[in-house]
Amino acid sequence: MAKGLIEPRVLKGFRDTLPAVALERSRMIRTLEGVFSSFGFTPIDTPALEYAEILLGKGSEETDRQLYRFTDQGGRDIALRFDLTVPLARFVAEHANELGMPFRRYHIAPVWRAEKPQRGRYREFIQCDFDIIGSESLLGDAEVLGLVSASLGKLGIDHELRVNNRLILNGLLETVNAGGTAALVLRAVDKLDKLGAEVVKAELREQGGLDDAQIATVFAYLALSASDATPTEVLRELDGLLAKSATGTAGVQALRTLFAHASEYGLAGRMLQLDLSIARGLDYYTGMVFETRMVAMPAIGSICSGGRYDNLVNLYSNRRLPGVGGSIGLDRIFGALEELKQLDVRTSPAQVFVAVGDDSCIAGAISIAQSLRQAGHPTELSLEAGSLGAQFKYADRRGIGLAVIFGERERLAGTCGVKNLKTGEQVNDISLTGIAAEITRRLTTLPRP
Amino acid sequence: MAKGLIEPRVLKGFRDTLPAVALERSRMIRTLEGVFSSFGFTPIDTPALEYAEILLGKGSEETDRQLYRFTDQGGRDIALRFDLTVPLARFVAEHANELGMPFRRYHIAPVWRAEKPQRGRYREFIQCDFDIIGSESLLGDAEVLGLVSASLGKLGIDHELRVNNRLILNGLLETVNAGGTAALVLRAVDKLDKLGAEVVKAELREQGGLDDAQIATVFAYLALSASDATPTEVLRELDGLLAKSATGTAGVQALRTLFAHASEYGLAGRMLQLDLSIARGLDYYTGMVFETRMVAMPAIGSICSGGRYDNLVNLYSNRRLPGVGGSIGLDRIFGALEELKQLDVRTSPAQVFVAVGDDSCIAGAISIAQSLRQAGHPTELSLEAGSLGAQFKYADRRGIGLAVIFGERERLAGTCGVKNLKTGEQVNDISLTGIAAEITRRLTTLPRP
Repeated sequence: MAKGLIEPRVLKGFRDTLPAVALERSRMIRTLEGVFSSFGFTPIDTPALEYAEILLGKGSEETDRQLYRFTDQGGRDIALRFDLTVPLARFVAEHANELGMPFRRYHIAPVWRAEKPQRGRYREFIQCDFDIIGSESLLGDAEVLGLVSASLGKLGIDHELRVNNRLILNGLLETVNAGGTAALVLRAVDKLDKLGAEVVKAELREQGGLDDAQIATVFAYLALSASDATPTEVLRELDGLLAKSATGTAGVQALRTLFAHASEYGLAGRMLQLDLSIARGLDYYTGMVFETRMVAMPAIGSICSGGRYDNLVNLYSNRRLPGVGGSIGLDRIFGALEELKQLDVRTSPAQVFVAVGDDSCIAGAISIAQSLRQAGHPTELSLEAGSLGAQFKYADRRGIGLAVIFGERERLAGTCGVKNLKTGEQVNDISLTGIAAEITRRLTTLPRP
Repeated sequence: MAKGLIEPRVLKGFRDTLPAVALERSRMIRTLEGVFSSFGFTPIDTPALEYAEILLGKGSEETDRQLYRFTDQGGRDIALRFDLTVPLARFVAEHANELGMPFRRYHIAPVWRAEKPQRGRYREFIQCDFDIIGSESLLGDAEVLGLVSASLGKLGIDHELRVNNRLILNGLLETVNAGGTAALVLRAVDKLDKLGAEVVKAELREQGGLDDAQIATVFAYLALSASDATPTEVLRELDGLLAKSATGTAGVQALRTLFAHASEYGLAGRMLQLDLSIARGLDYYTGMVFETRMVAMPAIGSICSGGRYDNLVNLYSNRRLPGVGGSIGLDRIFGALEELKQLDVRTSPAQVFVAVGDDSCIAGAISIAQSLRQAGHPTELSLEAGSLGAQFKYADRRGIGLAVIFGERERLAGTCGVKNLKTGEQVNDISLTGIAAEITRRLTTLPRP
């Protein structure tokens, strides 16, 4: 750096969002907002900063450690939110009467965690959460799955939903009397693929103290989990396996209802699968849990997860407010689409560029640009009259496919030209009154430039 | 609070955004993004947190004092951004080559200032900035004014733009030799209305040391500023008044060109006025400056201001990057529309509510809701079958105007009903295949519910 200058740099673990990415991200968020609205979900917002006591101890020891926490000018102990769930709980506890129940909300906003930066993980990232608060209806569970599928569908992402119900897992734990070793059994369910049957069996016996019959029940469950049977068949088997547990039976019935409702949203077959291995954490979820697989890139893990919980606001209020919701992993999806080269690399939202021949052409060029904008075509107007070659180069670099040419010749003739900046093809002598229609025709009938 | 509970509260000077406000704000931001895109402006984003050295000393002593500044887990001295201009300068200095010039960007994002909270002022608020960087073209100035007018127009706000050029003010200062007293002369120009002619004259004489001829020149300028003459006439007068100053003459010529360009954007007459009293701060702007008046509520002050500056990045880079841009005062506009009772008070984005008679009707009700969503009508599906009265009350409270009724009678007949929740009017026996078209007809031909 030259003397006296400040080095322009961002903090470790943070990043700027440059035009190409910002345009795509903005498009994705607009799409999601449209789908959320179509399901009657309303946006809300909460402050980035909260009293530290609101945020502390709500996630894990890890999230506490990762808090950006400090003392403000008024001596208050405050911190940046690390997720959107804790602020939602605070928000709902504070405004429950005003909001009315059931309350459907979405919230797309940044959160901050002082994590160790690593590839694809940042200290500031956008969360995209949606929830229905204040209803225990299983129809709400189905609405959430319908919303997830509609959202990903609108983003053009082929996806498969996988559901389970925590009551079934609890029923399994009751059936094998694994109260004290629930974590171990859940780990077995979750990690069988990774650990292998022998390791899991040994763990259940030695660390969990399960006997052979109990282990057999766990493995009957794991076998069902791995089977190719239809959800209807698996649920019938579970009725038998968990018959002694009222909890388990309720879970099976809830899933049966969910599959029935979900089929009305077009969710059946590979679009909605029963996956008995999904547990999603020990403490939070109490009913349906779900994950979502991106068909083109399943290895990246779930791109949208969530479930039903018994009480959102128990830390802030004596009122009981159950809910169901989920979170779309925008960054994860974004990374996958980037890897699949499905992201647009344009750095301008403009579809058309208006090139200006000389200063005498400025007035006419403004008029052309304005008519294109009014016809709904995002248009960039060249700010410098002069060399058309330089102007075309600028527009092409920005990914703009079409240029309208307005130079002295055109001004005198009362016409303009159109050039395809990808192919170089150029058409002249288009009337000024017809240019908007000509551009509309090219943008709708030709492949996207 | 009950024992053991944490009081749910937001920090002083912060606020939650509840559904009615969030829906309107979201609609406004979507509208602005659409207009910005139509002019070829791209979104960008920068981190909320920056190194403190990036932000300190860039605004005023006041903004330094108001910084939310702290030390992070890695011992870094960091702070939350207090505006979007300083991060833009850092961003452009860091990425100039990648961005290419001219670079048109907008940025709509929260900023934080630990100000003394007062009515209508918050410690977290959204800024909405747009700029064209890297061009000195006066066409850029005109594009910015065109963009402002298109933006406010799309928001349905009757507005008047007022422009001046800092070169004219500098020319006046040169003409009266007021180098050391520039602040005083600018204050006279800016505050004549408030202070009155005698106070201003006395200040210029006693504090500024101006003689009678110099004071007469200042007052000739002030008289021009207050006159009803057309911009063309005022600019002609200024040519004479500032003839001895090359700077002043350049400013007059720049405004002449700007008015010519702006007329191509439909900006003339009361839509674009010359206001010689606009100065907008001493240090930052160097060319055109503008403010915008909301016709229905001029007293709230400028709802969009900005101008041209010589160099955005001088603190971070030796490169010279001029620019022109502005900032829309979303909060101010929002407050005004609230006061004018022009804001929608609905708390749901849904236009239609689907009421469910009993559990046997759930499948059919989902199917109706999905068909309405696919027809483009945001639809809320009742999660609880049962009393229609309670369901209607819930929907009406949310501001949803229409309810589709699907109870046992309708299910058996294969039909549904539609009720206007404002008027109570109800129509029955609508076919299930015709319901989407019926809702479309009602929403487009009837006044907005």
